[in-house]
Amino acid sequence: MSTIPPTIEWAGDRIRLIDQRLLPAELRIVEATTIEELCAFIATLAVRGAPALGAAGAMGVALASVRGEDAGRAGAQIKATRPTAVNLAWGVDLALAAADPVAEALRLAADDVARNQAIGRNGAPLVKAGARVLTHCNTGALACVGWGTALGVIRSAWESGTRLSVWVDETRPLLQGARLTAWELQTLGIPATLVADVMAGSLMAGGDVDLAIVGADRIAANGDVANKIGTYQVAVLCHHHGIPFYVAAPRSTFDAATPDGASIPVEERSGDEVTSFGGVRTAPYGMAALNRAFDVTPAALVAGYITEDGVFDRPPRFDHEGERPAGGQR
Amino acid sequence: MSTIPPTIEWAGDRIRLIDQRLLPAELRIVEATTIEELCAFIATLAVRGAPALGAAGAMGVALASVRGEDAGRAGAQIKATRPTAVNLAWGVDLALAAADPVAEALRLAADDVARNQAIGRNGAPLVKAGARVLTHCNTGALACVGWGTALGVIRSAWESGTRLSVWVDETRPLLQGARLTAWELQTLGIPATLVADVMAGSLMAGGDVDLAIVGADRIAANGDVANKIGTYQVAVLCHHHGIPFYVAAPRSTFDAATPDGASIPVEERSGDEVTSFGGVRTAPYGMAALNRAFDVTPAALVAGYITEDGVFDRPPRFDHEGERPAGGQR
Repeated sequence: MSTIPPTIEWAGDRIRLIDQRLLPAELRIVEATTIEELCAFIATLAVRGAPALGAAGAMGVALASVRGEDAGRAGAQIKATRPTAVNLAWGVDLALAAADPVAEALRLAADDVARNQAIGRNGAPLVKAGARVLTHCNTGALACVGWGTALGVIRSAWESGTRLSVWVDETRPLLQGARLTAWELQTLGIPATLVADVMAGSLMAGGDVDLAIVGADRIAANGDVANKIGTYQVAVLCHHHGIPFYVAAPRSTFDAATPDGASIPVEERSGDEVTSFGGVRTAPYGMAALNRAFDVTPAALVAGYITEDGVFDRPPRFDHEGERPAGGQR
Repeated sequence: MSTIPPTIEWAGDRIRLIDQRLLPAELRIVEATTIEELCAFIATLAVRGAPALGAAGAMGVALASVRGEDAGRAGAQIKATRPTAVNLAWGVDLALAAADPVAEALRLAADDVARNQAIGRNGAPLVKAGARVLTHCNTGALACVGWGTALGVIRSAWESGTRLSVWVDETRPLLQGARLTAWELQTLGIPATLVADVMAGSLMAGGDVDLAIVGADRIAANGDVANKIGTYQVAVLCHHHGIPFYVAAPRSTFDAATPDGASIPVEERSGDEVTSFGGVRTAPYGMAALNRAFDVTPAALVAGYITEDGVFDRPPRFDHEGERPAGGQR
């Protein structure tokens, strides 16, 4: 049904990935043959999205290993490119701990798609017939190895026959909504309308939003959620209008070692991403700009966490791989 | 002190105005010699901002009158270009009712600057030493004949010696904040930092915003405020964080004939403004987009209305030119 190729895949001695900087104008597959190339792809968001970064981290260690390089050094180098995304460090550490980093990277990639499809199955019943769903950033197949988290829930609901439509926040400054989510929804044939991020409040005030579903880059032990800048505003607006706000994420995004949102490092990116777009300067030269990549949504604003193990009112604890989920499962 | 030329001025048989579509890259003065040219300038936002549109409306009627054309027909044509902005219709009607439309247009333009400076004087004490002020869209000299409304308050506070700094919302989709407000603040030497609209919530959560001041395109009799899309979100965020949210506007923006926000027509503009920027396509071809130009902020979220007659807790009534302001003046 989908014509979306794998976001990232292992090719024996190199990593193949969709260059998401070029979408939606062009679907181009590029290759990283060195750790430096991979780090540049990660830093410039050619590959992005928490679960995809997990695979990128593991494949990076695999790449260092097949090249006979110091895997620990490569892992540290990869982790430093995006400090907020816990999945990146998680993928690196899993591959470093494995006897065979290549096998571990392949396992992780296959596992990602299976987990996302489980997230989709678990979350789909939250999307009622006729629902108008608002989402922010891109949390679809392109954010993962495949399928998607928050957008995966929407896709699962759609493919199970639920009539729905999607409000797509364009997601300034890098427009992942306009460029990537719009492209995925169009490719999948799911009804969707793009809006500037400033319109969410107006839509909610008019009664045109039934629920919001977003992804996460890291979820602290207390349930605070770090995600793309602008997510927090959506959560506050949902709260103000009595609209449920859901977070969809695999258990690898839940970070028991981080007690709360205040402990999550928030990456600041170059102000150039705000003062220009696509080579077009939008602000006067010399204008100062602040560009936080993420914000933190307090747990109190989250109606539920949609995971591969179910939907939870409170943040589930996933400290150990084999542990059964705790927390208020619904 | 300012090097900003008049936003719009009458030149005997034509109207001269700054082409704001070209800022900040270029400061170019263009001329409207016909009603059609003027309407095209208004519709494409070469001239914009509620008070500037008031002057544009009056000067348009003056232009029709010196050209010996049907002023009533010209007025109707001008009014239809931007249905939400009450000042445009107000300027047209004042000039149509005057014995000498040219003299009326000149009076209105001079009056605008004087009123804005009074708004600035009245609002300046709300900005305390060290205040970090968030503003949305452009409400400066470029939105008026001169000086500005919300940005005029900031300018008055700054020029009276108050240390302050400004958070400038870039204001998608047309980026009036990034293009115009940033340019004005830079020209005036006022400390300012540009942010994507999605960052306001994060700034407020971090305690980095002391107050917000915005302008208005129309204020209903009950105090509901129509302003640039995204204003409502700023108001909800301020409410959530206990930050005062002020609206600065001349009495011509208060529309006693409109009972409440629900009665204000909200202009929808082309989705192309959302799916592309500066000639760069951001969304896939064929993607649907919704582009409301304005939203409505309920009176309950407004801490005060800053006018040329004082600061009011409740919407003042300005039904007649000579009436003294009513309402809870502070």
